[in-house]
Amino acid sequence: MVAQLEYVNRVKTQTENEVLTFTFDQLLLQRGGRLAPVTLAYETWGELNATGDNAILVAHALTGSSHAHDVEDPENPKAGWWNPLIGPGKYFDTARYFVICANIIGGCYGSTGPSSKNPLTDRPYGMRFPVITIRDMVRAQYMLIKHLGVRRLAMVAGGSIGGQQALEWAVAYPDLVEKVAVIAASAAVTAQAIAFNEVARQSIMADAAWQCGDYLPNQGPATGLSIARMLAMITYQSEESMEQRFARKQAQREPVTTPTFSPDLGGRFDVENYLYYQGDQLARRFDANSYLYISRAMDLYDVSEGYPSLEDALERIQSQMLFVGISSDFLFPATHVRWLADKVQAVGGDARYVEVNSPHGHDAFLKEWDKLTAALRQFSL
Amino acid sequence: MVAQLEYVNRVKTQTENEVLTFTFDQLLLQRGGRLAPVTLAYETWGELNATGDNAILVAHALTGSSHAHDVEDPENPKAGWWNPLIGPGKYFDTARYFVICANIIGGCYGSTGPSSKNPLTDRPYGMRFPVITIRDMVRAQYMLIKHLGVRRLAMVAGGSIGGQQALEWAVAYPDLVEKVAVIAASAAVTAQAIAFNEVARQSIMADAAWQCGDYLPNQGPATGLSIARMLAMITYQSEESMEQRFARKQAQREPVTTPTFSPDLGGRFDVENYLYYQGDQLARRFDANSYLYISRAMDLYDVSEGYPSLEDALERIQSQMLFVGISSDFLFPATHVRWLADKVQAVGGDARYVEVNSPHGHDAFLKEWDKLTAALRQFSL
Repeated sequence: MVAQLEYVNRVKTQTENEVLTFTFDQLLLQRGGRLAPVTLAYETWGELNATGDNAILVAHALTGSSHAHDVEDPENPKAGWWNPLIGPGKYFDTARYFVICANIIGGCYGSTGPSSKNPLTDRPYGMRFPVITIRDMVRAQYMLIKHLGVRRLAMVAGGSIGGQQALEWAVAYPDLVEKVAVIAASAAVTAQAIAFNEVARQSIMADAAWQCGDYLPNQGPATGLSIARMLAMITYQSEESMEQRFARKQAQREPVTTPTFSPDLGGRFDVENYLYYQGDQLARRFDANSYLYISRAMDLYDVSEGYPSLEDALERIQSQMLFVGISSDFLFPATHVRWLADKVQAVGGDARYVEVNSPHGHDAFLKEWDKLTAALRQFSL
Repeated sequence: MVAQLEYVNRVKTQTENEVLTFTFDQLLLQRGGRLAPVTLAYETWGELNATGDNAILVAHALTGSSHAHDVEDPENPKAGWWNPLIGPGKYFDTARYFVICANIIGGCYGSTGPSSKNPLTDRPYGMRFPVITIRDMVRAQYMLIKHLGVRRLAMVAGGSIGGQQALEWAVAYPDLVEKVAVIAASAAVTAQAIAFNEVARQSIMADAAWQCGDYLPNQGPATGLSIARMLAMITYQSEESMEQRFARKQAQREPVTTPTFSPDLGGRFDVENYLYYQGDQLARRFDANSYLYISRAMDLYDVSEGYPSLEDALERIQSQMLFVGISSDFLFPATHVRWLADKVQAVGGDARYVEVNSPHGHDAFLKEWDKLTAALRQFSL
């Protein structure tokens, strides 16, 4: 992995949103093959200090992007996916830290992914994109932080697949990371989580518009991707939160078209209308093949892969570790997050576990701002 | 509702499996419209006594049939869906009781459903089949038991949608039922259950082979129905049981073709192979439109519908009620089953609650034979 010398010197505070890119020549992949070249789209906030050790990397989840923070609309939780946590005086304090977020490889927000042009064919990769893993994503991020002049990361943090990346950072680059916050993520996902992901993927691939992955831009499998998202949204919430919000209410708002343009069968429940809306929104903004590859990376991730045992992997960790579980999360059960924290402690690591008590399920890491900040503050920055 | 006079006198013990049918002229439906004529496919075991009060009705779940018991293979749990509970000396003792099971309307195992011929067009109903409810299913069963000469049911029992039917029997025909066992069912399903069902239905309707419901026999949306079944199988189990059985094991058995004939992406987990198999099996044996209508009846069911309040509905109950919740059921959470038992008690009903402690999730009502028998035995027959 050799970085191209298109070094971008970015140490000034941004006043407007700007997505930058960094391209390097190749990445050899954990499961074989390589990706070449590799572009990462990224954003930064705050300034890197002279010693290059005040950088924080935040890692996004499945359908996220580099836009964790919005400098033009910093108080709006919807303008950047971790907006309430990032900014001057916030937990990820951009007055003191240089915060970096990059779109993961496999993504569709500027980084190399299945919708990127395959240089060998000059057409989008589609399903000729190689299988990528969380470790591959992290190794690409490593190239980026070196490129940015970061000598040591003050922290890596993320939730869900972002949490898997944070954990992988601690294991893959133990001497480069001071602190790591793993939120709503565990050593490896459950059989149930794999099962839900596979149903979502089959839904995408069942859509005739998928064309074995060779759909044209904006002509992708919108129906299949919408259905996949409907399912995913259930797994991101909880029985309790859905009951609080929807229960058995009939649709309250204007009816949204269903993914299949089907008529309602005996009325429409509000929860259905909500899911159609969420499905439609994702289908408009996200690439279906990226969904396949990234959700698969989530399934495949096992922090122990490539080491003789889980203990061997965890013994590598030198960072201070914070594990945050969410009480109602059924995609990454809190018991699994706590179990991992205990494992790290058991091999002599510096790990603490905090549980966010929330009815919002997995999604709490993108919703429970106060509780999340409180959990993170147990881990001083 | 007038029964046709094709009365079948069946009071002798069967020695071979036989599915009978009963047809009556019409059923006016709860949500409007009518079904005419209506055929029920049914099986019986044991003999009806002279006073017509030793009959037991068992009600099947979503993809079930009248074949609750197999007289030719009585010890095989797979030969009839409640085989271990039915037979001479078993809980539903066919030496003493006349046990009846009928395919529900909307089904595809001989009763009138979407795949039946619409007499107005001489072609299958498809999506011209009317919306049916649990109450409609029960009212059709009422016609059958009258036809069979039953004066009073000693018991009605069922799990899941079968449990909804049992509950509805207690409310709709309070003076006709001595005892009712409601297993893994509640007053109404949760928003989460509706959401899972709707994802399954959208998967079916997304399949081009669905043809707006007008597919030919054996040319239906096998891909969509397989995906729907994959999802449903997750909701019938539990995180714990899937972890015990599959964890993150790679596929152990011969690979099953995926619903979309897609290649594997980075290997195949055993849980995936299992789900492909289950999906394929259902697609071979079940009608996709029946799946749409019956799952919708499950969503729509609310025991209080048509009454001023839930209490008004439950006050009608005169039967002895047994509610059985399953500790790990997340489709019909045990807390909801217990809550309903408490409600029945609160309005003066005779209700008891038993919890089956099992990791098998919702499916425990088709698996945990000893625990289920023990739970039912608290309710003497």
